Amino acid sequence: MTSHVCLTARALGAHGVIIADQEDKVVESTIRDVTQRFGGPFTVSSGVPWRKTVRDWKDSGGRIVHLTAYGLPLPKLLPQIRKSSSDLLIVVGSEKMPGEVFKVADWNVSVTSQPMSEVAALAVFLDWYNQHEEFDKEFSEARIEIVPSKNGKEIREVAGRD
Amino acid sequence: MTSHVCLTARALGAHGVIIADQEDKVVESTIRDVTQRFGGPFTVSSGVPWRKTVRDWKDSGGRIVHLTAYGLPLPKLLPQIRKSSSDLLIVVGSEKMPGEVFKVADWNVSVTSQPMSEVAALAVFLDWYNQHEEFDKEFSEARIEIVPSKNGKEIREVAGRD
Repeated sequence: MTSHVCLTARALGAHGVIIADQEDKVVESTIRDVTQRFGGPFTVSSGVPWRKTVRDWKDSGGRIVHLTAYGLPLPKLLPQIRKSSSDLLIVVGSEKMPGEVFKVADWNVSVTSQPMSEVAALAVFLDWYNQHEEFDKEFSEARIEIVPSKNGKEIREVAGRD
Repeated sequence: MTSHVCLTARALGAHGVIIADQEDKVVESTIRDVTQRFGGPFTVSSGVPWRKTVRDWKDSGGRIVHLTAYGLPLPKLLPQIRKSSSDLLIVVGSEKMPGEVFKVADWNVSVTSQPMSEVAALAVFLDWYNQHEEFDKEFSEARIEIVPSKNGKEIREVAGRD
């Protein structure tokens, strides 16, 4: 599940992920490998306690979006979130999210008020936040790329990279 | 992962899910339980071989969308998919999807040409297919519903149910 969150974040335009609390070298290495092959930039780190992560983020002027089915609807909150020029930390997690997270978040955002997957919530949030334009996103220093195809599986090496 | 796919499908407007090949009574019961509490309609079944599922779907006039990073971009294919009035079977799966699926699909659709989560791809596909309007979707016969809230967790019973 963690690697699905990370791949979704990368593909849909986030600049990096922080896997809080638990160190996870396997996921870190999987995601770095994808970034080396398919391009970046995209950072990944793990093991920092979530409270410290959130505090440091706020201390450096960033703001916090917490994705939860209990929050206010995305269409209602998105205009003010987009208007903020701060760096955003998007918090997603399991059902056992500590209540404190709801308080420290600048925005508790629901992607539908239904039980759902945090991967799905993150995907729809990022797609809306990036105004449905991530299909045009360019990744730097990719070694390989997928060639869109009607019904095949085609990958090509990217020229100009040793 | 399977239950994340099912919950995403339900929350974002699909009418049901078919878990192909493997019977999975645990996920079936989890999803039925969510549907009984939060409303439907939403069907779930499992254990039918994927080839039979696809053949039956096509025989009854339905069409097949296969979500894969290798496909043609969603923004390019969506207009023709939406123009088709057929029932759609959206196929998602693991990396080990049989090559045959690419051939039987009416459309191989990529939600970005990047390695991603099938849950994320399904979420973005359904959101676009439903024209970003699933926040207004009404579920029937819900017993409980989430009350959107700034920073709390509020659930209320739905009146008028036995």
